[in-house]
Amino acid sequence: MKIKVINPNTTLAMTKGIEHAAKSAARSDTQIVAVSPKMGPASIESYYDEYLSIPGVIEEIKKGEEEGVDAFVIACWGDPGLHAAREVTDKPVVGIAESSVYLASMLAARFSVVTVLPRIKTMLEDLVDSYGMQKRVLNIRTTPMGVLDFERDPEAGIEMLRQEGKRAVEEDNAEAILLGCAGMAEFADSLEKELGVPVIDGVVAGVKFAETIVDLGKKTSKLKTYKYPEKKEYVGALENFGRNQTTTK
Amino acid sequence: MKIKVINPNTTLAMTKGIEHAAKSAARSDTQIVAVSPKMGPASIESYYDEYLSIPGVIEEIKKGEEEGVDAFVIACWGDPGLHAAREVTDKPVVGIAESSVYLASMLAARFSVVTVLPRIKTMLEDLVDSYGMQKRVLNIRTTPMGVLDFERDPEAGIEMLRQEGKRAVEEDNAEAILLGCAGMAEFADSLEKELGVPVIDGVVAGVKFAETIVDLGKKTSKLKTYKYPEKKEYVGALENFGRNQTTTK
Amino acid sequence: MKIKVINPNTTLAMTKGIEHAAKSAARSDTQIVAVSPKMGPASIESYYDEYLSIPGVIEEIKKGEEEGVDAFVIACWGDPGLHAAREVTDKPVVGIAESSVYLASMLAARFSVVTVLPRIKTMLEDLVDSYGMQKRVLNIRTTPMGVLDFERDPEAGIEMLRQEGKRAVEEDNAEAILLGCAGMAEFADSLEKELGVPVIDGVVAGVKFAETIVDLGKKTSKLKTYKYPEKKEYVGALENFGRNQTTTK
Amino acid sequence: MKIKVINPNTTLAMTKGIEHAAKSAARSDTQIVAVSPKMGPASIESYYDEYLSIPGVIEEIKKGEEEGVDAFVIACWGDPGLHAAREVTDKPVVGIAESSVYLASMLAARFSVVTVLPRIKTMLEDLVDSYGMQKRVLNIRTTPMGVLDFERDPEAGIEMLRQEGKRAVEEDNAEAILLGCAGMAEFADSLEKELGVPVIDGVVAGVKFAETIVDLGKKTSKLKTYKYPEKKEYVGALENFGRNQTTTK
Amino acid sequence: MKIKVINPNTTLAMTKGIEHAAKSAARSDTQIVAVSPKMGPASIESYYDEYLSIPGVIEEIKKGEEEGVDAFVIACWGDPGLHAAREVTDKPVVGIAESSVYLASMLAARFSVVTVLPRIKTMLEDLVDSYGMQKRVLNIRTTPMGVLDFERDPEAGIEMLRQEGKRAVEEDNAEAILLGCAGMAEFADSLEKELGVPVIDGVVAGVKFAETIVDLGKKTSKLKTYKYPEKKEYVGALENFGRNQTTTK
Amino acid sequence: MKIKVINPNTTLAMTKGIEHAAKSAARSDTQIVAVSPKMGPASIESYYDEYLSIPGVIEEIKKGEEEGVDAFVIACWGDPGLHAAREVTDKPVVGIAESSVYLASMLAARFSVVTVLPRIKTMLEDLVDSYGMQKRVLNIRTTPMGVLDFERDPEAGIEMLRQEGKRAVEEDNAEAILLGCAGMAEFADSLEKELGVPVIDGVVAGVKFAETIVDLGKKTSKLKTYKYPEKKEYVGALENFGRNQTTTK
Repeated sequence: MKIKVINPNTTLAMTKGIEHAAKSAARSDTQIVAVSPKMGPASIESYYDEYLSIPGVIEEIKKGEEEGVDAFVIACWGDPGLHAAREVTDKPVVGIAESSVYLASMLAARFSVVTVLPRIKTMLEDLVDSYGMQKRVLNIRTTPMGVLDFERDPEAGIEMLRQEGKRAVEEDNAEAILLGCAGMAEFADSLEKELGVPVIDGVVAGVKFAETIVDLGKKTSKLKTYKYPEKKEYVGALENFGRNQTTTK
Repeated sequence: MKIKVINPNTTLAMTKGIEHAAKSAARSDTQIVAVSPKMGPASIESYYDEYLSIPGVIEEIKKGEEEGVDAFVIACWGDPGLHAAREVTDKPVVGIAESSVYLASMLAARFSVVTVLPRIKTMLEDLVDSYGMQKRVLNIRTTPMGVLDFERDPEAGIEMLRQEGKRAVEEDNAEAILLGCAGMAEFADSLEKELGVPVIDGVVAGVKFAETIVDLGKKTSKLKTYKYPEKKEYVGALENFGRNQTTTK
Repeated sequence: MKIKVINPNTTLAMTKGIEHAAKSAARSDTQIVAVSPKMGPASIESYYDEYLSIPGVIEEIKKGEEEGVDAFVIACWGDPGLHAAREVTDKPVVGIAESSVYLASMLAARFSVVTVLPRIKTMLEDLVDSYGMQKRVLNIRTTPMGVLDFERDPEAGIEMLRQEGKRAVEEDNAEAILLGCAGMAEFADSLEKELGVPVIDGVVAGVKFAETIVDLGKKTSKLKTYKYPEKKEYVGALENFGRNQTTTK
Repeated sequence: MKIKVINPNTTLAMTKGIEHAAKSAARSDTQIVAVSPKMGPASIESYYDEYLSIPGVIEEIKKGEEEGVDAFVIACWGDPGLHAAREVTDKPVVGIAESSVYLASMLAARFSVVTVLPRIKTMLEDLVDSYGMQKRVLNIRTTPMGVLDFERDPEAGIEMLRQEGKRAVEEDNAEAILLGCAGMAEFADSLEKELGVPVIDGVVAGVKFAETIVDLGKKTSKLKTYKYPEKKEYVGALENFGRNQTTTK
Repeated sequence: MKIKVINPNTTLAMTKGIEHAAKSAARSDTQIVAVSPKMGPASIESYYDEYLSIPGVIEEIKKGEEEGVDAFVIACWGDPGLHAAREVTDKPVVGIAESSVYLASMLAARFSVVTVLPRIKTMLEDLVDSYGMQKRVLNIRTTPMGVLDFERDPEAGIEMLRQEGKRAVEEDNAEAILLGCAGMAEFADSLEKELGVPVIDGVVAGVKFAETIVDLGKKTSKLKTYKYPEKKEYVGALENFGRNQTTTK
Repeated sequence: MKIKVINPNTTLAMTKGIEHAAKSAARSDTQIVAVSPKMGPASIESYYDEYLSIPGVIEEIKKGEEEGVDAFVIACWGDPGLHAAREVTDKPVVGIAESSVYLASMLAARFSVVTVLPRIKTMLEDLVDSYGMQKRVLNIRTTPMGVLDFERDPEAGIEMLRQEGKRAVEEDNAEAILLGCAGMAEFADSLEKELGVPVIDGVVAGVKFAETIVDLGKKTSKLKTYKYPEKKEYVGALENFGRNQTTTK
């Protein structure tokens, strides 16, 4: 099967890392295609970045339909555009935050998230609440490092995660740690060994969940919420989004 | 004061209607500027449309900074891009859904929303929950009519709203009716008379709340969640969003 | 328009302060009438005081009907008698706690309240929950000072608010501060400057929301919950409450 | 022991009925004193009536302190003034709504309330939510009959309860029925036989819970929320409430 | 009346202590029968122990039917098997955790639980949530001592409870303390004196609630959730559970 | 890998069906071992049956440790003993209800469950709530058929599911249907075709999730809630549960 992993930001070095993580988790007969959108931000660290990454994500989903993709993974821990992505295709689409919390809840009774800048705490709190996980998530721990700081200085990154992960275990009593950014996959194994609790990277979780749903032959429900978008005109820089739509009408 | 009312869709006839409603509610010394974005969908009836309307909305917010705008109203009942808009400016930004539910809760103990197509019910449920109104909102009633159907055939529109409004009062015991689309302002008064309960149009509510916040001299908190976006590169059709940013760095 | 601001306690010096705050926020064509009830407690710092302030509040609402009042503001951060007030008049009635949390949620993603004695914490927690704001309110911070202590010793008062406000910002990560007592209006501006986040006084918020609702021509829904009280006999010291009622029968 | 049962309304015929129910449930060595306040409404059917009944209720609690009362029952299904009552005495105070829902939840997984006029539905919904029973209470069923209609025409009353009780069992799948008014005790037994599920009258539940708490030697916590009210001046018709207070200072 | 108090663990010394507490609280005309099951764990400190205690508890409930028991108390602070117990008998069954939280909520606005090992915190959190008490319970405080450590070394036990109880009052602002284990009854009185807030032992609370429900002549609803189990075959070590069932068929 | 699928009831014909479904979903290199416990009920249709199935389930988990099992699936839609199972092994254990709701929430915005007898509705409601799915699950639809009726008369079974599934789609607007019993796998495909929405059988979902977690090399967190049970004596018919324990001490 073919799974398209979309890194919603446009930093290709990070996409490479995500691709690596995805391939290491995928089955040998699963083809991983990892991409960044053709438009959007270099990293996602605010509502602004998140919303502006979505057009590019949707475009990649739409292209995926023609590319014979069987399932999609949105590889950013805000799950940007997830619900819209489910509208434009009937192939399964999973987010890495979503996959992380569901996976974690099958391994641990309570857990914490460790992520990037403090400003995204509210965004992630509301996200995990939307997945019904408010009681299970003990804390969203942020760091002073941005998304690309983890790319640029992985040593500082792992040190920061180690520190916050330890505090999550000791102060929150977190029974698992969720890495709240798609660029942290490489740190998961060593952290897990050090911390002694499951450390969950969303990219690998998302890829495996995508494989699972394809194996089960399931597709997104097209009954109501996730029907194909209504056909209509789009103008300006986003004009193409109104064209060649697979739509309900 | 100058209030910019942004109709997130690109249907100018609808923007005209919104402008008319906004002006009729604004104080004589309030200048209303009603616009549609330069890019995006002709109407918003799905997550797809909603997310794709946001870049255009943000662009209008940013332009507003240079235009000397004192406050912004996002005039679509999904409040698209509201949190991002609060990041790019320190001027108050209010959504019409948000304004509607807060206003309604000061007039009625329980209420229902009447809106467009069934597919957006989930979206609106999650939205009113995010405002803490899950207990007060009895029902989100949808109609078979799309956003622009109400523009094209106002007579059918009012008839549909009358019918669902009546059922909201009789079956839900709704003590107020919220019109769940920016293009329904013109119907509010006659519906209110017929139904005997407050009928709330979000555009006028949003404009008045915006005036109030400006009068109070309040600005959006820039401490954490709504800080200016981090400065970074944007590529492709959205390249401009990385340029000339008012940012934290 | 004429807005009656009811300070539910009987301390006229405090009513003067509230009147001053209300007038400073009101439009020039808005007439502010600030009163204390003819019966009740000198301050409200318990359920006991709160409930016993309500008969006096209701009396003032009823009188307001004859005085040509267009809207009412209940100026105590427990919103005492708010729902009953909405029964005895069809003019809009807003509470200052209610107004504060709705206003704050349009300016900040998360916030804390700073108020008087520790014993009222439970009362205020339950109140903000009833407005659906449990997720947004990070903390109700109390001080060892009572309501009238803030009147008697404003210097100690501002110092106390400064201290708790600072802890709210630093420890709670509050993005706005709500002053949880009607007698704190005078401190709002200097606190806002010092703390660097919106500081919200409920009296001015309430007055502006009242103006807004009158401007919109909206009245309280009389369909069900807020119908006029059933006509019936009242005895004893409250005998008058059964007389000359505007009632449903 | 001596239990004072306070019917918060001033209709003595109803107080008699409540006294009868209380005595029939009390142990032989429990002395029941049933009273109505000296001031307030003839019945409670709105927020207005509810709040205006509270001063009279509090007065009776305070008198009870001198009368050697061991525990108090507030015998109206809105539990008016319950939290204030717990402030003015350290003797246990229980409400009949509170007692009913806790008792019911030890007998049935899900249940419905049958009560008087439609207008009080919101009030009772918010009340049962405040006791954490939102998931257990399936429905608050109202009837077109007021409180005193049940006194005046018990035959119509029982018929109405039978009808709504039956619908609660058949349509809501209620596994117990709670009689949502203090004047319905006399109907409980025959309804229980007919409906085949527990039918709970709050007055007898409240009296037995009060006995239990006295037996256990427990008193209301005076640490924080329920401390004695702060000593202060009261004016006007409620002047006495500031006098001879048992207070914290 | 005859109340059977079931200590779900098989440590008879602890059952003796529970019997003592139960008898000290029961009325003189109440016969207390305290037992341990014939099978199961020596103490309950995990989901494992809890579930494995349930067959023994159910067996004791069933025997109670023949022994002329009027009501049952399940004396472990996890309320093991409570819902199943309500299926196999129509006599009232109360759990001591359930009784504790309902009793506490009639005495205090907010409270904390002090219990045994850290590992059961999740279990107790989910339990109090299931009783709707998430807002009232401020904290579940655990200790490094197991259930039988409190039996073996009561002096260390009381010291531990004193310490955590004090922190509950000072740090959580708990207005009552709930002893989260059936073997702590003996410590309740002295702790209450020291801490100055109600200290609630579940065994005595459960016994008194059981007496109350018997006095009221109420039985468990057999309409739906708590119907007698369906008759069916059981095999292996639990074979007897399929025999001589009082069942619906 | 080796996955042990435990049908918690002792009806081997049903275990065969579950094995068939599991094998059809498993990868070719996954070995499925499907068993029924050596003790317990022939079917699970009450709290009684559910709790009494748990000792047998736990025994099978423990045996699995010696059998070289890599992961466990508990194949009953009440997920009996799930938390205890996670204590006795560090291999992943998933429940089929849990798997179903997480899978469904990646395919559909809102869904309903169709299951056996009405009496288990409360049990399943509380279960899906414990997974945070209260907002997504629109309805738990029951049928007059018991678990084994579906085995005995599959034609009546499919007809019943078809009927309730249709009502779920039409009346609840369910966008997916969850089959709320392990014995319904065989009906899933034809129902999905007829109803036009995803129809989810928990057994196949559980098996695939188990494979995924094994692939990811993840194990249950042993930090706190799911630590191995404390070592202790067990007596009577369950005596073996105290022996040869893998425990924390």
